[in-house]
Amino acid sequence: MRATVMYRAGDVRIEKVPDAALLNPTDAVIRVTRACICGSDLWPYKLLEPTQRGVRMGHEAIGVVETVGAEVRRVKRGDFVVMPFAYSDGTCGFCHEGLNTSCVHGGFFGNGDVHGAQAEAVRIPQADGTLFRLPIAEDEALTASLLTLSDVMGTGHHAAVTARVARGSKVAVVGDGAVGLCGVIAARRLGAEQIILMGRHADRIALAKEFGATDIVSERGEAAAERVRNLSGGLGVHSVLECVGTEEAMRTSVEITRPGGSIGRVGVPHYDTIPAAQPAFYKNVFVGGGPAPVRAYVEELLPDVLEGRIEPGRVFDRTIGLDGVPDGYRAMNARESIEVMVKP
Amino acid sequence: MRATVMYRAGDVRIEKVPDAALLNPTDAVIRVTRACICGSDLWPYKLLEPTQRGVRMGHEAIGVVETVGAEVRRVKRGDFVVMPFAYSDGTCGFCHEGLNTSCVHGGFFGNGDVHGAQAEAVRIPQADGTLFRLPIAEDEALTASLLTLSDVMGTGHHAAVTARVARGSKVAVVGDGAVGLCGVIAARRLGAEQIILMGRHADRIALAKEFGATDIVSERGEAAAERVRNLSGGLGVHSVLECVGTEEAMRTSVEITRPGGSIGRVGVPHYDTIPAAQPAFYKNVFVGGGPAPVRAYVEELLPDVLEGRIEPGRVFDRTIGLDGVPDGYRAMNARESIEVMVKP
Repeated sequence: MRATVMYRAGDVRIEKVPDAALLNPTDAVIRVTRACICGSDLWPYKLLEPTQRGVRMGHEAIGVVETVGAEVRRVKRGDFVVMPFAYSDGTCGFCHEGLNTSCVHGGFFGNGDVHGAQAEAVRIPQADGTLFRLPIAEDEALTASLLTLSDVMGTGHHAAVTARVARGSKVAVVGDGAVGLCGVIAARRLGAEQIILMGRHADRIALAKEFGATDIVSERGEAAAERVRNLSGGLGVHSVLECVGTEEAMRTSVEITRPGGSIGRVGVPHYDTIPAAQPAFYKNVFVGGGPAPVRAYVEELLPDVLEGRIEPGRVFDRTIGLDGVPDGYRAMNARESIEVMVKP
Repeated sequence: MRATVMYRAGDVRIEKVPDAALLNPTDAVIRVTRACICGSDLWPYKLLEPTQRGVRMGHEAIGVVETVGAEVRRVKRGDFVVMPFAYSDGTCGFCHEGLNTSCVHGGFFGNGDVHGAQAEAVRIPQADGTLFRLPIAEDEALTASLLTLSDVMGTGHHAAVTARVARGSKVAVVGDGAVGLCGVIAARRLGAEQIILMGRHADRIALAKEFGATDIVSERGEAAAERVRNLSGGLGVHSVLECVGTEEAMRTSVEITRPGGSIGRVGVPHYDTIPAAQPAFYKNVFVGGGPAPVRAYVEELLPDVLEGRIEPGRVFDRTIGLDGVPDGYRAMNARESIEVMVKP
């Protein structure tokens, strides 16, 4: 079969690889209906050290189950499923608490022998716990939004939940990538009254407004923080969704949070320490977040997708085949595309 | 009257100063029945740069109202009151939310013209919002515990609340000072099942056990973290009460928190950034805390003090007059005393 392999920063290739196959009796193999290139894939695209073996990329997919191992009970051949970006057994204490990303038998796709999903097929460890069986057959109109349940919509929702967005909240979303845009959807869905998007790209701003953003702040640094405080009545916002992952984004997040407010950080952190520890302390700011347990969120978000109340799939502004993947990385990195869908 | 003035690190004097007097119509003046030397007073005792005017020390007291300004309505001469370490108007949005330490008309005792309470009397700004009128007359047996409601007990409670201690929680308390010991009381009061105190002083450990600590960890650094993880079943604790305020204490806190767990930090932070941002992220750890809104907590904690269910006043192991204050600082700094009570 064909799959995406990254050998170093900027070097993405489509290669012929051995067919995805069962390795453990708890595995399944799915044929990938749609995968995508995620904003977090851009970190290795910028920074990956040269590697001889290559990294099998892709951690989001929807697909159809092809084979299941002898111990798999809850999914079967032919099921239409969501593959969350982390696999999990569904039975450990953390899974029961809804923190599947800390599953004691879990891990992340695209690492070691758990290959990536930008491919024709992918092996799914812990298939019973990992896969979410969709209650519908493949549906072209809903495809894109269903795909977001494997990462970006669940991650935006996690940012909003950990930032404690509630009815009437004033919210700021730091970052206008696909996760930030899904954060806007999530904040609105949870009843936010004001949603300030911090971003600078016209296409993303337009989409954010359609998703429910009430204000746009395109300044940078202290000027940006100042504007957010002014827009929110002088004191800052109740909830900040940090969807970038840089030290600067975290510093801005602390500056714009109202005393007693919360920051939900979901941008993969490319910083070692959280800045502005003292301002955060004196304001009694909460900082939460991490890898989103999207598996736990599918159940809550799915009805809104199925019934069309939310359309997170609109973050995809380009659909490509596997051959187009290298150029898809380039386009996303150049900010020509918000999020790229892959149809293997 | 006489009051405590600090001129530089290590230089604490008792001096004759002008009598405390009303400055604004919303002020009151209280005669200080008891004040105390707080662990947080040791930071300036170690670090204060020389200052010609001096700093009027002390931010915790109980006392009796002597005079009130023309606009004061809720307290009157003769009332027995708790003075929280922060003053607040009691009417702004933050006060209504129970975050009095962020009051828009608030501030902290021992700053500028809001003098400290290690004195015979002290002016109270925003008296209606700040002072909590006790429902009893002065009571020798309860004095010490009532005094803790002005800071250390409320602060330990804040650590436990922001660390989300709940019934059945596994908890670690980092620091065996008065706040850490009150954190043990607070964690037990909120139903914690396991309370691991991290400390090294025999007298404090003995008291912690009486307050409800189930385990003691006296190692340092990584060895300490390892022991806490082992004691809590391998994964770390649900809640960490960070009652020190150093970078090392915060790093340890992150290391011992279970995935999905929370850190309540109440030690005045002497660090600029929160370390271990990436481990905290991958574990979805919450970091909260700040100056405790003790004014908001008095109502909840007072019945337990009045009815003897908690005895936080036992953290005081020395009572001195004003003349003894300089030596009291020395004794606390030398760890000869846990917490020193001042009877002006």
